[in-house]
Amino acid sequence: MRDTDGLRAGPASQQGMRRSNLALVLGVIARAPRSRAEVAAETGLTRAAVSSLAEELIAAGLLVEEGPAAPSGKVGRPGTALGLNPEGPGGLGAEIGVEHLGACVVDLRGEVRSWRRQEIRNRDRRPAAVMADLAELLRRATAEARLRPAGLALAVPGLVGDGGGVLQRAANLGWRDVSLAAELRLALRATGAEALAELPVEADNEANLGGLAELWLGGGPDHFLHVSAEAGVGGAIVVGGRLLRGARGYAGELGHVPVHPDGPACACGARGCLEQYAGEAAVLRAAGLEGIRGDWVAMLAERAEAGDEEVRAALAGAGEALGTAAAGAVNLLDPAEVVLGGGYAQLAPWLLPAMRAELAARVTVRPWSGERLRVSRLGRRGPLLGAAVGVVRAIVADPGRLEG
Amino acid sequence: MRDTDGLRAGPASQQGMRRSNLALVLGVIARAPRSRAEVAAETGLTRAAVSSLAEELIAAGLLVEEGPAAPSGKVGRPGTALGLNPEGPGGLGAEIGVEHLGACVVDLRGEVRSWRRQEIRNRDRRPAAVMADLAELLRRATAEARLRPAGLALAVPGLVGDGGGVLQRAANLGWRDVSLAAELRLALRATGAEALAELPVEADNEANLGGLAELWLGGGPDHFLHVSAEAGVGGAIVVGGRLLRGARGYAGELGHVPVHPDGPACACGARGCLEQYAGEAAVLRAAGLEGIRGDWVAMLAERAEAGDEEVRAALAGAGEALGTAAAGAVNLLDPAEVVLGGGYAQLAPWLLPAMRAELAARVTVRPWSGERLRVSRLGRRGPLLGAAVGVVRAIVADPGRLEG
Repeated sequence: MRDTDGLRAGPASQQGMRRSNLALVLGVIARAPRSRAEVAAETGLTRAAVSSLAEELIAAGLLVEEGPAAPSGKVGRPGTALGLNPEGPGGLGAEIGVEHLGACVVDLRGEVRSWRRQEIRNRDRRPAAVMADLAELLRRATAEARLRPAGLALAVPGLVGDGGGVLQRAANLGWRDVSLAAELRLALRATGAEALAELPVEADNEANLGGLAELWLGGGPDHFLHVSAEAGVGGAIVVGGRLLRGARGYAGELGHVPVHPDGPACACGARGCLEQYAGEAAVLRAAGLEGIRGDWVAMLAERAEAGDEEVRAALAGAGEALGTAAAGAVNLLDPAEVVLGGGYAQLAPWLLPAMRAELAARVTVRPWSGERLRVSRLGRRGPLLGAAVGVVRAIVADPGRLEG
Repeated sequence: MRDTDGLRAGPASQQGMRRSNLALVLGVIARAPRSRAEVAAETGLTRAAVSSLAEELIAAGLLVEEGPAAPSGKVGRPGTALGLNPEGPGGLGAEIGVEHLGACVVDLRGEVRSWRRQEIRNRDRRPAAVMADLAELLRRATAEARLRPAGLALAVPGLVGDGGGVLQRAANLGWRDVSLAAELRLALRATGAEALAELPVEADNEANLGGLAELWLGGGPDHFLHVSAEAGVGGAIVVGGRLLRGARGYAGELGHVPVHPDGPACACGARGCLEQYAGEAAVLRAAGLEGIRGDWVAMLAERAEAGDEEVRAALAGAGEALGTAAAGAVNLLDPAEVVLGGGYAQLAPWLLPAMRAELAARVTVRPWSGERLRVSRLGRRGPLLGAAVGVVRAIVADPGRLEG
């Protein structure tokens, strides 16, 4: 039995049909270059309709002729293959981390054309100062990519309101109620990047963007729980190819799922949250490295690699807690996979054994096999990739929006 | 930022447009009776198109003329209001519980036209014997309703495969790999209900159907976690008006979310699952009533009402565990509400205080207010109502399917 929606927004219209057929054609070609005839066969549109739609997409700079299509085995001259235009509109991604800034440009095909990361301690800096540094990084990344971005998306370690422009709270930055889009535009203008300041700006939580990057680039199924270490413990739930955002955009707070209800007090006010076992501060404390600064993930990986038993035990403890929380989430959500991403990907060799054991012990009503816990190959690049790729995917999903 | 789908199944077609416009018109009228002019205004379709679509829906027995529409304040004669036909095709619901059977018929408007419940201990009975009793109940309920059902949906206390026809496992019945549709059709034929045996049959887990009933009839938001006591602890997650089923249809297993990872051993093989604190056996044990037979929910409610301190303490303990597990789910899913349904609805006065306290203590990163934990008014009627109403909702969502 399937639940169903009875209502749509309105009747089908000619204009709506053309707009959705533009997206249909572009979407088919986005999966792999194809001749007009192949597009017609795959979509069910007439060849005349495909030709007309393709002309419009070429004129908009979204498609290019790529030369002869692969021989189809059929009689006749093979058509010219159409592909996404690598010099068409691109996506500009930006990231504000607690200890770094990032900027990246991808082309319409999702290929990275420039990538910049700057280590800098942003904790407790004023938003305007951070934005000034970020604007400069974005200006450079865009100049290097030689591509006109169609939009800018920003990953932040905090909670972004439904509108996408206001950061409600980022505890690890010490920020609250920051108008991200407005602040970033001011900084871009101040650095002389007028064109970038005119772009549509959207912002999202880094864990959400990391989860979306995994969906789009990770090569796995479209139904998974993504667990990442950023400033805190990040979670993203992808269901049927869509990010589950929750009623008010707060979904994915795996870090505050109770692991031991009577455990240590958490900064959130509760006790025994996952963050108290697998968050940065908790793991460093367990490893006897409390208060150490710098790149904690790289440092722990290096020490564990070198055989440091205290660090290995601390990571095993974190893995056990991650496994307990993940088991609860798997029982609730039945994802096809649990994906270990962000900083955890780099620490996976020492987290995985305990995590696997917990999942195996606690997901028993339904079959669960160990290989369904997987390590992301994107790791800490996820949020920035997700930001930039999201911009170009939105164009491919609805090329009509560019005409607006 | 919103994630987007780039692809649709195929191009928009004339036939597809008519079918979806039939659904559009029927869906608008399903919300409240309306004149043809009002339907045209609301849908954006022309009045001629609405008239033609309405004629088709009247001919199919789905719509009726209800007499003059309410005066619109505009000049001219008010049109005739169209409404769903209460004598049109209905929905037949069936339920197999561990201690009862149920049958129910609803009309196209979702009104209950007959309701039958039979207390009977089904645990460890053979499926064929249970189906024989159920078929007889269905035959009587349908005769009483004097309505021709368009489909039959069956609620079961176990796991139903994706196809909807095979029960994979129902631990509390002692059943495994039962072809529900085939068995039920055989039993219906044996009881002389040939017409019912010809109906399309779908089956689903009782917790899923209870959650859908809450969505359709509960009057709350379309984003919630539904927690119910049936044979075990049932969970259903509704996101944006859709039941979250998981990658393989196993989502919602709240009963096996770990509450105290080192707690008592659970029948599932893990330790400290919610079911070990809030399931039937656990609550009866905590109340000193282990092994008592009959309607445990009614019995506990009666004793708690009478002031039995042991029962009240057992229910408070269950409420605390329910609150801990629900808090984890809220942090993960950000539902608009947590709804206490099924047998828990009847026990709510003694469960709620501890549950509210746990939620308040553990959902702190985001604002959570006590009234977002709500008691379902459907209670134990949910799964059977969900089964029957689902049948008629599927007709309203796509009336074209009846033409097949």
